[in-house]
Amino acid sequence: MAIRTEKDSLGNVEVPAEALYGAQTARAIVNFPISGLRANPALIRAIAAIKLAAAQANADLKLITAEQANAIEQAAQEILDGQHHDAFPVDVFQAGAGVSFHMNANEVIANRAGQILGDPLGSYKKVHPNDHVNYGQSTNDVFPTAMRLSALLALEDLYPVLESLRNSFEEKAKEFDGILKSGRTHMQDATPIRLGQEFAAYGVAIAKSLRHLRTTSESLRELGLGGSAVGTGINTHPQYRAKAIANLSKLTKQELTPAADMRYAMQSCAPMSEISGALRTLALEIIRISNDLRLLSSGPNTGFNEIGLPGLQPGSSIMPGKVNPVLPELAAMVGFQVIGNDTAVALAVQAGQLELNVMMPTMAHNVLQSITILTHTLHELDHRCIRGITANTPRCNFYAQSTVSLATALNPYIGYASAAEIVKESVGTGRSILDLAREKKLLTEEQISEILDPLAMTEPRETI
Amino acid sequence: MAIRTEKDSLGNVEVPAEALYGAQTARAIVNFPISGLRANPALIRAIAAIKLAAAQANADLKLITAEQANAIEQAAQEILDGQHHDAFPVDVFQAGAGVSFHMNANEVIANRAGQILGDPLGSYKKVHPNDHVNYGQSTNDVFPTAMRLSALLALEDLYPVLESLRNSFEEKAKEFDGILKSGRTHMQDATPIRLGQEFAAYGVAIAKSLRHLRTTSESLRELGLGGSAVGTGINTHPQYRAKAIANLSKLTKQELTPAADMRYAMQSCAPMSEISGALRTLALEIIRISNDLRLLSSGPNTGFNEIGLPGLQPGSSIMPGKVNPVLPELAAMVGFQVIGNDTAVALAVQAGQLELNVMMPTMAHNVLQSITILTHTLHELDHRCIRGITANTPRCNFYAQSTVSLATALNPYIGYASAAEIVKESVGTGRSILDLAREKKLLTEEQISEILDPLAMTEPRETI
Amino acid sequence: MAIRTEKDSLGNVEVPAEALYGAQTARAIVNFPISGLRANPALIRAIAAIKLAAAQANADLKLITAEQANAIEQAAQEILDGQHHDAFPVDVFQAGAGVSFHMNANEVIANRAGQILGDPLGSYKKVHPNDHVNYGQSTNDVFPTAMRLSALLALEDLYPVLESLRNSFEEKAKEFDGILKSGRTHMQDATPIRLGQEFAAYGVAIAKSLRHLRTTSESLRELGLGGSAVGTGINTHPQYRAKAIANLSKLTKQELTPAADMRYAMQSCAPMSEISGALRTLALEIIRISNDLRLLSSGPNTGFNEIGLPGLQPGSSIMPGKVNPVLPELAAMVGFQVIGNDTAVALAVQAGQLELNVMMPTMAHNVLQSITILTHTLHELDHRCIRGITANTPRCNFYAQSTVSLATALNPYIGYASAAEIVKESVGTGRSILDLAREKKLLTEEQISEILDPLAMTEPRETI
Amino acid sequence: MAIRTEKDSLGNVEVPAEALYGAQTARAIVNFPISGLRANPALIRAIAAIKLAAAQANADLKLITAEQANAIEQAAQEILDGQHHDAFPVDVFQAGAGVSFHMNANEVIANRAGQILGDPLGSYKKVHPNDHVNYGQSTNDVFPTAMRLSALLALEDLYPVLESLRNSFEEKAKEFDGILKSGRTHMQDATPIRLGQEFAAYGVAIAKSLRHLRTTSESLRELGLGGSAVGTGINTHPQYRAKAIANLSKLTKQELTPAADMRYAMQSCAPMSEISGALRTLALEIIRISNDLRLLSSGPNTGFNEIGLPGLQPGSSIMPGKVNPVLPELAAMVGFQVIGNDTAVALAVQAGQLELNVMMPTMAHNVLQSITILTHTLHELDHRCIRGITANTPRCNFYAQSTVSLATALNPYIGYASAAEIVKESVGTGRSILDLAREKKLLTEEQISEILDPLAMTEPRETI
Repeated sequence: MAIRTEKDSLGNVEVPAEALYGAQTARAIVNFPISGLRANPALIRAIAAIKLAAAQANADLKLITAEQANAIEQAAQEILDGQHHDAFPVDVFQAGAGVSFHMNANEVIANRAGQILGDPLGSYKKVHPNDHVNYGQSTNDVFPTAMRLSALLALEDLYPVLESLRNSFEEKAKEFDGILKSGRTHMQDATPIRLGQEFAAYGVAIAKSLRHLRTTSESLRELGLGGSAVGTGINTHPQYRAKAIANLSKLTKQELTPAADMRYAMQSCAPMSEISGALRTLALEIIRISNDLRLLSSGPNTGFNEIGLPGLQPGSSIMPGKVNPVLPELAAMVGFQVIGNDTAVALAVQAGQLELNVMMPTMAHNVLQSITILTHTLHELDHRCIRGITANTPRCNFYAQSTVSLATALNPYIGYASAAEIVKESVGTGRSILDLAREKKLLTEEQISEILDPLAMTEPRETI
Repeated sequence: MAIRTEKDSLGNVEVPAEALYGAQTARAIVNFPISGLRANPALIRAIAAIKLAAAQANADLKLITAEQANAIEQAAQEILDGQHHDAFPVDVFQAGAGVSFHMNANEVIANRAGQILGDPLGSYKKVHPNDHVNYGQSTNDVFPTAMRLSALLALEDLYPVLESLRNSFEEKAKEFDGILKSGRTHMQDATPIRLGQEFAAYGVAIAKSLRHLRTTSESLRELGLGGSAVGTGINTHPQYRAKAIANLSKLTKQELTPAADMRYAMQSCAPMSEISGALRTLALEIIRISNDLRLLSSGPNTGFNEIGLPGLQPGSSIMPGKVNPVLPELAAMVGFQVIGNDTAVALAVQAGQLELNVMMPTMAHNVLQSITILTHTLHELDHRCIRGITANTPRCNFYAQSTVSLATALNPYIGYASAAEIVKESVGTGRSILDLAREKKLLTEEQISEILDPLAMTEPRETI
Repeated sequence: MAIRTEKDSLGNVEVPAEALYGAQTARAIVNFPISGLRANPALIRAIAAIKLAAAQANADLKLITAEQANAIEQAAQEILDGQHHDAFPVDVFQAGAGVSFHMNANEVIANRAGQILGDPLGSYKKVHPNDHVNYGQSTNDVFPTAMRLSALLALEDLYPVLESLRNSFEEKAKEFDGILKSGRTHMQDATPIRLGQEFAAYGVAIAKSLRHLRTTSESLRELGLGGSAVGTGINTHPQYRAKAIANLSKLTKQELTPAADMRYAMQSCAPMSEISGALRTLALEIIRISNDLRLLSSGPNTGFNEIGLPGLQPGSSIMPGKVNPVLPELAAMVGFQVIGNDTAVALAVQAGQLELNVMMPTMAHNVLQSITILTHTLHELDHRCIRGITANTPRCNFYAQSTVSLATALNPYIGYASAAEIVKESVGTGRSILDLAREKKLLTEEQISEILDPLAMTEPRETI
Repeated sequence: MAIRTEKDSLGNVEVPAEALYGAQTARAIVNFPISGLRANPALIRAIAAIKLAAAQANADLKLITAEQANAIEQAAQEILDGQHHDAFPVDVFQAGAGVSFHMNANEVIANRAGQILGDPLGSYKKVHPNDHVNYGQSTNDVFPTAMRLSALLALEDLYPVLESLRNSFEEKAKEFDGILKSGRTHMQDATPIRLGQEFAAYGVAIAKSLRHLRTTSESLRELGLGGSAVGTGINTHPQYRAKAIANLSKLTKQELTPAADMRYAMQSCAPMSEISGALRTLALEIIRISNDLRLLSSGPNTGFNEIGLPGLQPGSSIMPGKVNPVLPELAAMVGFQVIGNDTAVALAVQAGQLELNVMMPTMAHNVLQSITILTHTLHELDHRCIRGITANTPRCNFYAQSTVSLATALNPYIGYASAAEIVKESVGTGRSILDLAREKKLLTEEQISEILDPLAMTEPRETI
């Protein structure tokens, strides 16, 4: 492979001759052969947008030339459009604060901009990674900004998936609204409920999680860009900050604002903990609902068998004809990963020291992975599982009639203690609550049939 | 000890003759001798408020008598006022869903109400724990409601502590605004910053955490009370729910609303994960800031020694005269506990099954403990530590003059690469950046003194 | 309340006149009003044992007088025997490294020893907390030692509980060995298994957890006592360390050894992470088994209903006659707490800095709480739940006959693909595997009845 | 792309014509487009080894033909040797229990074996994935076995890295043994210590973590292979299990044994929690040591500056000449990830239900990723950081002379209280402990110089 030689303050570095990246990136490839994982596309797009927005602001303030700015803008826009992502080879586990990833971006843009202006790769004559692409910027304000922005960009893909999933639950709620079954609390017979009521509640859980994500993401919009090295704005023009963030806002179609305190916005990564926590809560709901689906579809002959999930693949290498609830299982596993990722984020967020938290690459990696795997998983869960769920009405109805908690409806008429005696007898003898209530003549036949109607137990009602 | 005998559906139970609690509580004492920890007072107050609000609603709807309701209200109000808390002996680790704690409340209120009406303890003739105190209620709607409400009540104590702590940081920010020091990123020399800027950022961190807590707590206000057994409102009057929650809102001076979907509000404990997550984020900030305070006050002779913390107690059993940063250390440890508690909460929240999450007692215990220990710790940290911090101005100024990152200010004039050469020489020879800049005659003397003025580096400025 | 005044390097301190503790403890009460939680008795016993062992060693080496040593030994022995624990009022959340708890111990022993020798409380003339009780010791070697030792002492209570629980599972395994049922994987019909096989596996899970705890606890036996202030043994006699640890070993009947590297044993709290991790793994098993018990006992009419758990208390405030699996639910919640505690421990363990990890009080509190609540919970689970489990043999047998995975046994004879066709038909038509196998005449009647015998499927066998 | 059509119990599936994998894998690619992450090579090798070992056993028992066995063995050996790994495209987030990954292995081996025997891809005439490659096996015994074995295989790469890292710390300990410095506890001046003593302790921390990993890994050696569908060994020959595991042991050069209870070994994933916990503890130590290195190398002019780390890359995009402790920062971030991964593992381990824990893919992914990134990171940390650390002896010595805790050595002669007065005066006046001790004439000059010799304070000694 042909190479070119670049020089930095620590000496010469060999770089593949055709690489858009430069010396710092080449050093990082050598220094961090850790996981093979590369930056999430949302993070690459976010940093390109920042570089573009900063170049516009600096050109506006005459700190770089219009020629430089135009070339930088074109290069950055290409990255935003999905080009050159293969020129970002730095491992997600890398230098503290993401210096290597940041310099990777500066180098790729400087080289591509130079190329546009006719400069050979690695010359940095017309556009220098530090002096022009990075003018007035520092990893310490750029990476916190990129990390927040990338989360906002990635969330845009998750939101419609959540909306669709909520819709699918709502559709099923309507479809199943007339199907009477038994509730279960503590995994024990409880009072009747309609299957549709259960699915409606799942829809609400998704809707609430979505709302919580949106609300929580607001704090990601306050950016420290402009704080440069330590949050004081050294080497920035007094008007740079407002201009750059306005540019960035326009470019990404995200409402973004300069943080009131730049030191805070660079030192503190609390918003990453917040959004990670909101993803964690979504994961908890997904796990819970998935577990419910696994319970309700358990069977066919040895389980609850109230609902059927679409069969996606043979379920066992040894047990023929087995079909497993693979997507709910997947969803639970992905949920566990999101919780694990959240732990890593929390550890990183607490580890800031003085003017900087160098643990940001870990936060970015984990939050973006969580968003990505949730997005993909919930899309599959929605389309390949939830939408195809069928109800086993006879089985549901059987449970509605047989739950011993039908006796609950007797409380207002005969008192909790007497009702408990009937349940005890029912469990002991296997006779139904209805039978026993009749036999004991505690109420008229008419009262009994009205009071013990399972359907009537699924909404509040006046006592008769 | 004198005893009385009560009877429930499982048989006879011995209860201390004078106890306000009854059979279920006595069973729970025997069944759950786990930790010795008892319910947080906020939880006891919350459940008493619920019982009071429900009794008012039920009386209003003629489902219990006015006499019963009045007695229940008086009994519940006494608990709200802090009486009878010693009649709540059930361990925080107990029956799933908090059935035992709930029955404890029903029993205490029934017995106290009976007492008010002249009934002997344990007779439950005039006021029965299940049939009257618990009319139209279930652990499954009462405990989720109590858990949310108790968190809201407990947070009311944390908020002013956070406001005061933020104020104290702001006061220190003003006091230290003129003190120039060196920033540090990656624990290495960075560009100058003012000590006051650092303290201002700590104040913002607290303010933002407070805001996040308040925003997040909103989802605790949507209550499932009225869902009774499985969220269908069985055994409740159609108007009960709205009435009871309106009463509760008025009584507790908290804005509370009926959840749009009662099933959701009983099945899902997501709001507990959300608030726990917000407490977790606060804890992360507290840990970070505490660690900074420990770094900045390190010394006296072998550390940074930029600030002094008030001495609260001799710091060592062997090293005489040692004074340690005990409150920041405490705060970090409490932060770790809050994060641990949050893990327990997350596990509990994902463990719901179908109509109920029986793991609620764990959530309530951990969230309330987190709020309590944060409240107490941050009050001490504020009053006994932050307010008494002193600055070591000469040491700070020494760092401001000696950081090698002063050279950063040269970038716009001589370029990053040339500035790096100067730093390299400074580190190698021990000569100052100022000296070397002068010697190299890259700029005029006047330029140099203006450009390399550390104070000017602490705000954005135009290039000269 | 009568007070006395003591003096330390920071000034005068008021102490209750009759308190065995002194100035440092009094300061700590004021400084740390955090949680109301006090030191676990195992930690108090551990530190008393250390003080006793150290006094013996120092007297032996003529560094304190025999009179002092005898008085210290008597005082410490009283604490070991359970006396004076109320003289340890310091909150578990306190000064870093447990300085306050350590000084509390030094003060109580000094005062009690002084009392024995006729000195008034607070005079410290004959026995001084720092100069005599603490001779050659530091919080920095004493607390790490006490923390490890206390865990070893507390584990001695957990081990027999685990042995008993394992026995109970084994007893049930024997009792249920003949009961045939269906296995379930992915919550779907799987091949037959015997109920006793399931309970035997639970017994093994407990046995393995016990073994893992014992193995892991070995690293707690290597002690840093003798390292004094920073692990160099300053102010200790060259023979002190070996003598003190030999004394401690003898006194506590625990095999204890001096750590090969005292710096390591003081800086690193890895053994606390290890033991906490082992408790975590036990908790995971307990949660899993508890969840299985809740599944298997689900019902009575709407669940699996394969086993019955003893009824311990009415299960619902509204649903009469309900009986819940309260102890498995409790066990799961306690398991969640142990996992949360483990998170707090991990955070504390990583937070060491240079010669000391000041976060030890958090580790001690969490590990000891985990051991305590596991011990109490598993004792109840064993005695009040596992031992009373009954099997519902008819229901189990019904499942054994109806699981569609009976067809698995046909694989070696007709191949997986053909067997899958039979299952598909069975699920579609509701006809049994046996019927369909017969109808298709793929095998002789004799072969079929032998191959499809569920009992024969519960052990390996040769093909026929 | 050319395709072929395969058929399974759910219908026809299109597969790339040249793919070694088959229908189940093709379904999985469609069903699980989640993360883009593929199975760790160690897991692929482990499952290939199992298939080889099982085929040998089955051939030995005449359950498959010698021709089939030979072809299967050759195919599996090729995978073990690193071939065909690109034929394993299934995402790490996939079907519960890893059914898809398992069938992927069965299919690749069946196709490759068929190819060897002259069969076209996808025909499965001579070697069938379920009937021959998977004879007597189930995902439910194969995946738990593969997961354990893969961890053992991956650990073999980590162990030598840990040994080398320990050696490097030991080498530095020798090199720095004569360098006197001040200890620091609570980040405050403590008594003297030698820099070499600190590095020796780091070496011990690594050695102990290594020992703990080795000990903990023992439980991974007990395998459930042979349990087949639900741990009863259905469709296995009574001798199969012992033979297969003996083969596997020989093939992988790992000591492996059949688990005493197959049900346990399939239901319980506790050993994965144990090994993950041991990796977690290693991570905690790595974080702690990394943080120490960052503290000790802080500077050059505003920090402790006791040691220098090799400069690997320019440290800042804006601050010229900055060199950061990139590898310790990386190591801490990787440590956080390992802790996060451990959380995901714990959640998965507790989620077993009855005969199976379907969450195994998450465990395998996280444990193997943790091992991989620790292996790579610690290799870099060792070679590029620890080995190149230099000491700043003058700075260290300066601290040794100036720490106020020198006064500790006076305790045995003048008592703690008097020594504390000297320290107080020293801190107040800036005068040295030595000066003040002399001035006060509490001891002879000779005594003072001997007692206050910092070097003598770094080991136990007799009082003079």
